[in-house]
Amino acid sequence: MTDAEVFSAVETLARNARAAAHRLSQLSTEQKNAILLAMAKELRARTPEILAANALDLEAGEAKGLSKPMLERLKLDAKKVDAIAGGIEQVAALPDPVGQVMEEWTRPNGMRLQQVRVPIGTIGIIFESRPNVTSDAAVLCFKTGNATILRGGSEAIHSNRAIAAALQTGGEAAGLPEHSIQLVPFTDRSSVSALCQMDKWLDLIIPRGGKGLIETVVSQARMPVIKHYDGICHLFVDKAADLDMAIKLTVDSKTQKTGVCNALETLLVHAAVAESHLPAIAAALREKGVELRGCERTRAIIDAVPATEEDWETEYLDLILSVKIVDSLEEAVEHINAHGSHHTECIVTADDAAANAFLSGCDSACVFHNVSTRLADGEEFGFGAEIGISTDKLHARGPMGLRELTSYQYRVRGEGQTKG
Amino acid sequence: MTDAEVFSAVETLARNARAAAHRLSQLSTEQKNAILLAMAKELRARTPEILAANALDLEAGEAKGLSKPMLERLKLDAKKVDAIAGGIEQVAALPDPVGQVMEEWTRPNGMRLQQVRVPIGTIGIIFESRPNVTSDAAVLCFKTGNATILRGGSEAIHSNRAIAAALQTGGEAAGLPEHSIQLVPFTDRSSVSALCQMDKWLDLIIPRGGKGLIETVVSQARMPVIKHYDGICHLFVDKAADLDMAIKLTVDSKTQKTGVCNALETLLVHAAVAESHLPAIAAALREKGVELRGCERTRAIIDAVPATEEDWETEYLDLILSVKIVDSLEEAVEHINAHGSHHTECIVTADDAAANAFLSGCDSACVFHNVSTRLADGEEFGFGAEIGISTDKLHARGPMGLRELTSYQYRVRGEGQTKG
Repeated sequence: MTDAEVFSAVETLARNARAAAHRLSQLSTEQKNAILLAMAKELRARTPEILAANALDLEAGEAKGLSKPMLERLKLDAKKVDAIAGGIEQVAALPDPVGQVMEEWTRPNGMRLQQVRVPIGTIGIIFESRPNVTSDAAVLCFKTGNATILRGGSEAIHSNRAIAAALQTGGEAAGLPEHSIQLVPFTDRSSVSALCQMDKWLDLIIPRGGKGLIETVVSQARMPVIKHYDGICHLFVDKAADLDMAIKLTVDSKTQKTGVCNALETLLVHAAVAESHLPAIAAALREKGVELRGCERTRAIIDAVPATEEDWETEYLDLILSVKIVDSLEEAVEHINAHGSHHTECIVTADDAAANAFLSGCDSACVFHNVSTRLADGEEFGFGAEIGISTDKLHARGPMGLRELTSYQYRVRGEGQTKG
Repeated sequence: MTDAEVFSAVETLARNARAAAHRLSQLSTEQKNAILLAMAKELRARTPEILAANALDLEAGEAKGLSKPMLERLKLDAKKVDAIAGGIEQVAALPDPVGQVMEEWTRPNGMRLQQVRVPIGTIGIIFESRPNVTSDAAVLCFKTGNATILRGGSEAIHSNRAIAAALQTGGEAAGLPEHSIQLVPFTDRSSVSALCQMDKWLDLIIPRGGKGLIETVVSQARMPVIKHYDGICHLFVDKAADLDMAIKLTVDSKTQKTGVCNALETLLVHAAVAESHLPAIAAALREKGVELRGCERTRAIIDAVPATEEDWETEYLDLILSVKIVDSLEEAVEHINAHGSHHTECIVTADDAAANAFLSGCDSACVFHNVSTRLADGEEFGFGAEIGISTDKLHARGPMGLRELTSYQYRVRGEGQTKG
């Protein structure tokens, strides 16, 4: 396809999404939940077709020489399809934020104001590899009354098409308005740029992926963007840190899972406890196979690869941890604000005043006192489901649940109040 | 200055703003209020210097042939400077949203979560002509702990410099961190483009101005933007509308002030009451000097200039009103969603069910039942002050008060909770 053909096809999708959004905003919670259950049922019924489509993607991926972890992320089986359907049923069971009155008050002139949650409208989701995102993102946006345009990675195009078709067919039989969930059906790279130009029809773009994708969207998008970027998360062992707590939280934050944005990447240790705490923490990490990269002062106490300046701004997503000794809590906070990605930071301390200073000093979405960074997650926070973790500060920061997929409007009722 | 020199100078401002933002976020409400009162005092004391600077702008504006309304907006006098200072004192008296706990809850594993309001960080304000915006925007951002970079119009540069200097000098003597409030001190147009590239240092840009400015910012900005765009506001006279109420609200919405975004631009009338209501409404509007532009069915009932398709999407900001007859409430809602700017819409009706359908059907920031569109305003809503009216749906929609100038972070406290 030429760029002009891609642009025109994407514009049609976007225009259709806007029309669907109005109809979606008028559905009741009961109608939406019935549609979600119908989607889950159809998805389960189509397991053979979905796995056949997935096999095509895997075959193409192997021929293209995709890495083993990439192929692993791409691969579906009957259990995974069942889990995707189960996820839809969970979303059906969640409370619907749309229509919720956030605040209401009356003015001296008698005007009665309500701030009411409403759908955002139309959302473009741009993502890579994992085909389950097709369903996860679409149903969260649908539950909140938003129309979606999904643009997945080319390596999962057959799987994505099969999943989207199941959601559409199952949903539409139960009353889903046409064009509520649309997949960009081709894989031309210029479709990302085209989506970024659709500010007349698309209210929001959520990019989930690597630096290249995020850079393209940030530089080209004319509409609001909520980024799901990297997590350079820190854990600070304060001078009042209990050693066992420091070991337990460092090991869980770094090793419970490594390829995720809320995994630990840099350990900061207060100089006053470096000699007493660092050797035992390092031993526990080594036992889990973690490579340590330390500053000079760290390397005077434990064995570690020399850390470079680059290490402080690297998201390893692997069994690697950078370690730095700092002279004060203030220095820890400064390091985090300067080098981190404003995602999640933890202080280990028995001193509540120190904890409060750390929590209010770090300019990050999630700031934890004696809690593993791995718990920075919508499910763990009790949101029921999450569309991702925003590294932006506007509209949604940190774990994004259903509520963050809504906007609001002011509904005002009166008896002829005027300005003049 | 060359573009590279402008870029470098703006980058220095932006980098300095980021450094100031951290210090600002740590100020107590008492400290901030004392600084605000000191700013107001210094501004009053510098009235002669500010008026002398304003005279230079007026002289240059006359030489350049600025229109009379433009010169009027530019002009300051002692009373206006006093009002700007009074505005600062009002902001000092408002409650501080920073630090407010929006929600708190405990998870089954014992984690205690708080969602706490924090400053956004650094905000770029790009505005045109009115020099009072320099102070209004800066103090609202400061009260919420944000550092600002102000980029005003070239026609007000002397006035803006004098006002910014008063705020900086007065504030810094009372403890305002250096670089908290910075004015782009030159008028090169490329400074707007340069600001749009500063996503590493600037968290948000708020453009207030005409279409050209908004277009530049929307197409170039890499960071979030909250637009203050146009208001194509509608009033719908329902079939159950009281005639006197319809006249009163139409006249106030259209004529109480015309050059503002919450003034009425299009009147929609239900066909069932067009014959009975439209002539009296039209007569009342004509008495106020309003030119009417009507659809064919309107022109069969009253005298009006023929309306073109363009009229339905025009913000007149003048004593002109487009009038259209519709066959149903649904048609009114469809017209509004298709042609409006999603700012403010009003239904006049004695039928609560019709009102509810209209309010939930219009995809606009403010939806009113029997209330003048002119009351879509932060002061009228009880926000104490407003930085403007957002026509965006993300983060802030409609009137933006102090609360909308904040972000939030999740503060989580535990006793060693882990994922594994």
